[in-house]
Amino acid sequence: MTVLMGQMMNMPLTVSSLIRHAARHAGDVEIVSRRCEGDIHRSNWAEVHERARQLAQALEALAVRPGERVATLAWNGHRHVEIYYGVSGSGRICHTINPRLFPEQIEWIANDAEDAVLMGHRGEMPASTSVPDLLCFDDLLARHDGRYDWPELDEQTAATLCYTSGTTGNPKGALYSHRSIVLHSYGAALPDAMNCSTRDVILPIVPMFHVNAWGLPYTAAMTGAKLVMPGPFLDGASLYDLFESEKVTFSAGVPTVWLGLLNHMKANGLKFSTFKRTVIGGSACPPAMMKSLQQDYGIEVIHAWGMTELSPLGTLSKLQSKHEGLPAERKQRLLQSQGRVIFGIDMAIIDDEGRSLPWDGTSAGNLVVRGPWVISSYFKSKDSPLVSVDGEPGWFPTGDVAAIDADGFMFITDRSKDVIKSGGEWISSIELENIAIAHPSVHEAAVIACRHPKWDERPLLVVVPKPGATVSREELLRFFDGKIAKWQIPDDVAIVAELPHTATGKLQKLRLREQFRDHVLPTAG
Amino acid sequence: MTVLMGQMMNMPLTVSSLIRHAARHAGDVEIVSRRCEGDIHRSNWAEVHERARQLAQALEALAVRPGERVATLAWNGHRHVEIYYGVSGSGRICHTINPRLFPEQIEWIANDAEDAVLMGHRGEMPASTSVPDLLCFDDLLARHDGRYDWPELDEQTAATLCYTSGTTGNPKGALYSHRSIVLHSYGAALPDAMNCSTRDVILPIVPMFHVNAWGLPYTAAMTGAKLVMPGPFLDGASLYDLFESEKVTFSAGVPTVWLGLLNHMKANGLKFSTFKRTVIGGSACPPAMMKSLQQDYGIEVIHAWGMTELSPLGTLSKLQSKHEGLPAERKQRLLQSQGRVIFGIDMAIIDDEGRSLPWDGTSAGNLVVRGPWVISSYFKSKDSPLVSVDGEPGWFPTGDVAAIDADGFMFITDRSKDVIKSGGEWISSIELENIAIAHPSVHEAAVIACRHPKWDERPLLVVVPKPGATVSREELLRFFDGKIAKWQIPDDVAIVAELPHTATGKLQKLRLREQFRDHVLPTAG
Repeated sequence: MTVLMGQMMNMPLTVSSLIRHAARHAGDVEIVSRRCEGDIHRSNWAEVHERARQLAQALEALAVRPGERVATLAWNGHRHVEIYYGVSGSGRICHTINPRLFPEQIEWIANDAEDAVLMGHRGEMPASTSVPDLLCFDDLLARHDGRYDWPELDEQTAATLCYTSGTTGNPKGALYSHRSIVLHSYGAALPDAMNCSTRDVILPIVPMFHVNAWGLPYTAAMTGAKLVMPGPFLDGASLYDLFESEKVTFSAGVPTVWLGLLNHMKANGLKFSTFKRTVIGGSACPPAMMKSLQQDYGIEVIHAWGMTELSPLGTLSKLQSKHEGLPAERKQRLLQSQGRVIFGIDMAIIDDEGRSLPWDGTSAGNLVVRGPWVISSYFKSKDSPLVSVDGEPGWFPTGDVAAIDADGFMFITDRSKDVIKSGGEWISSIELENIAIAHPSVHEAAVIACRHPKWDERPLLVVVPKPGATVSREELLRFFDGKIAKWQIPDDVAIVAELPHTATGKLQKLRLREQFRDHVLPTAG
Repeated sequence: MTVLMGQMMNMPLTVSSLIRHAARHAGDVEIVSRRCEGDIHRSNWAEVHERARQLAQALEALAVRPGERVATLAWNGHRHVEIYYGVSGSGRICHTINPRLFPEQIEWIANDAEDAVLMGHRGEMPASTSVPDLLCFDDLLARHDGRYDWPELDEQTAATLCYTSGTTGNPKGALYSHRSIVLHSYGAALPDAMNCSTRDVILPIVPMFHVNAWGLPYTAAMTGAKLVMPGPFLDGASLYDLFESEKVTFSAGVPTVWLGLLNHMKANGLKFSTFKRTVIGGSACPPAMMKSLQQDYGIEVIHAWGMTELSPLGTLSKLQSKHEGLPAERKQRLLQSQGRVIFGIDMAIIDDEGRSLPWDGTSAGNLVVRGPWVISSYFKSKDSPLVSVDGEPGWFPTGDVAAIDADGFMFITDRSKDVIKSGGEWISSIELENIAIAHPSVHEAAVIACRHPKWDERPLLVVVPKPGATVSREELLRFFDGKIAKWQIPDDVAIVAELPHTATGKLQKLRLREQFRDHVLPTAG
């Protein structure tokens, strides 16, 4: 015999098993939502399960077939949770669309996804409309009795679809499976990741249209935690009110939203009563913000890295036992890193020829990952985006450049398309930008590569001065002295009135590079 | 289209991925073992990974084929961990055998499993022997260089084999798969289960030959925790020494071992410095022991229920948020329960006709479970042991009788073969035994069913008095007054010199029932 199979039950990992578990073991645990209408709505896991089954019946009645896409344009709220479970649980695909996109972007994505249905709220229903087949969600559910058995699905079946917000080219879809969602939930709930238990009250600030709110509606169901949903009200005052009134213990979001919350709290001399820890990701958390949360408010900040193509969690920064005795600033440096992988995710750093680089904390290379919650290809695409590591195929290129230390702490140093390749050495544009932004007269800074006859590429610093401030090329270049190796200092500075951004506020380096395509560096470089 | 598959990586869940993860992300985290030789041995995850690969090479050289069984007769130690990973990781099956069994039992099990190799330690090597092919484990590894790539296995491939210790009939094998082991590890590490992190120092008192030490060698690798292995030295003094010298934070074992440890500590006025929480299972933890651990030593006691057929974890007792305000004795009652399921395990209680019973905390029925780490059949058996619940097939009958409350807290009331079925109502033999054992003159007590012309069955109490004590039938029966409903009080008492036990100390109710097969109950019943 060459192989022997185990004699274990063949139970698929499915989204419906998550909501069934929550309804049965935490049925009275609440889902509290600030609705678009502004009022507070109270539901619980048993009710969400009931309404998710009513929705599954409604989709059946509307002849939406298994495998078809049901799109949502919605904020974080109980109805969105019901749609997550009703759509995926019944074998259809929940396609979340960011309502903040431009109408033409929404149209492009909905057409690319071939969405069969678009879900909205009563609060968003127009008084009169010429749109055919416009149905109110709550009215739709009310027609059905919830006596519905979830189908047994192959765990590889598609469950949700989320498009990347890509700064270049058209958005691309990540088509998650039931298996990938459940495994991601196990990983996310682990003590070294989000550490979620049935005693948690979770407020996902990260939107449900952004990589499934980092999986929190699933992780909360798996653990039987209470969910608090802020709707579209992400200002400091609204969030603080929910944190306190609902006794939130855990939250997750991008750095920007924390800024608003902290400003509100500082201005009003407020403190948290129950809030203990948060995951911050999406982009790097500014060190000052992390320190303020830790020291002024006693919050454990878990720095995380991930991406749409990773469901999204890849790494989180938690210390190991051996770090206990380290000086505070060395601990802080590790907590500021992107952290270590959750079991399930493998990572490697490679050079441009696909050779793996050592985990020495300094060698920087293209970050690649693999694991059961990483995409193998984009929606409707047959082309594989995967690359090889030392000849072994099957790794997803993240587009990030990173260094990894001997314990597996990962430090993002740049986006690979932004790194400056100077004479075979790599220079991190982010590192240079972080130095420039610390100059008192600089409002915003970007570093891009410029062609160079001898070194291939050399860095060009582009800055927007603060209103009313002036700053010279020479002064800015001197500002780098002693902060970085001499050969990494930019060759030139361009002072501009503004930098190009996307609709969601991301810097468009591609447009900046086009703008400075013909820029001639000084010959001294 | 009727179904759409997700576009996620097809990464199998394998045992080798656990050890590779531990070696890469926690390579210098220690595995400390008290060896059979008595000395302390220090290794780490990187070394264990290296030696596991050497072992895989050795098995290849010995022509042990994939799917073949490699048996172990070993205590908890680093070599046993190396065998776990080297054998399963390379596609062979690790078959752990309890060294405490009688030689003829070991022979029966090894023959039934068709073991190809039996693994032992240098400390156990005879000076001279006539056994052919006797190889020292360490010498065997030293012949190989560890340059070995783990094979890519189907995650359903068998990984380990463990026989039940069944009190009736021949032992039966549970054949775990790579998938079931990895999923069990995710579940076991969750905050509401064992709550394991990379900051933990885990001392598994439960032996590695007993359901893979409740999965701890896998969970520790997944989380990058330190492992402390006690070898065969489970006396209070040896254990306490390891707890303190290695800064143990978490442990797991059956109630009996805790008794020895607590007695040693009480006798010597000792306290724990780092130990914070423990899982106790295998049999119910006596309330007094739980209270002593909690109140005298500040230990969180997590009561757990499981069985060999469940890999083994099914439920663990952790409180929910809403229990925070409960009076201490009501909290304690929940902590004394068998707890709530880990996500992945479904449970139900059914009557003898397979109809599910309500979760009201009082209705007791046959406990059945299903989930990806539950067996579907026994090793080499084509017969399905599974039963139906309300007509739905695929549930494993645990042989336990339990009640479940509305929040999913499960309370074992009896073994199903021991429950007394009196006039359509069920009487728990365990409940009656617990009352009887509280009588000051009773050393040991067992309750069995006796045939009854009117009620089908009625309880018979069999007691062994304490040395020198005497106790009458009438006194014992009066002792039940007010402690239990009148109709549940035993009909008769038999006073005996001793009760029948197995080699591992389990009460043999089957033999007791045979012994009292012709017992005639008084007609008053």
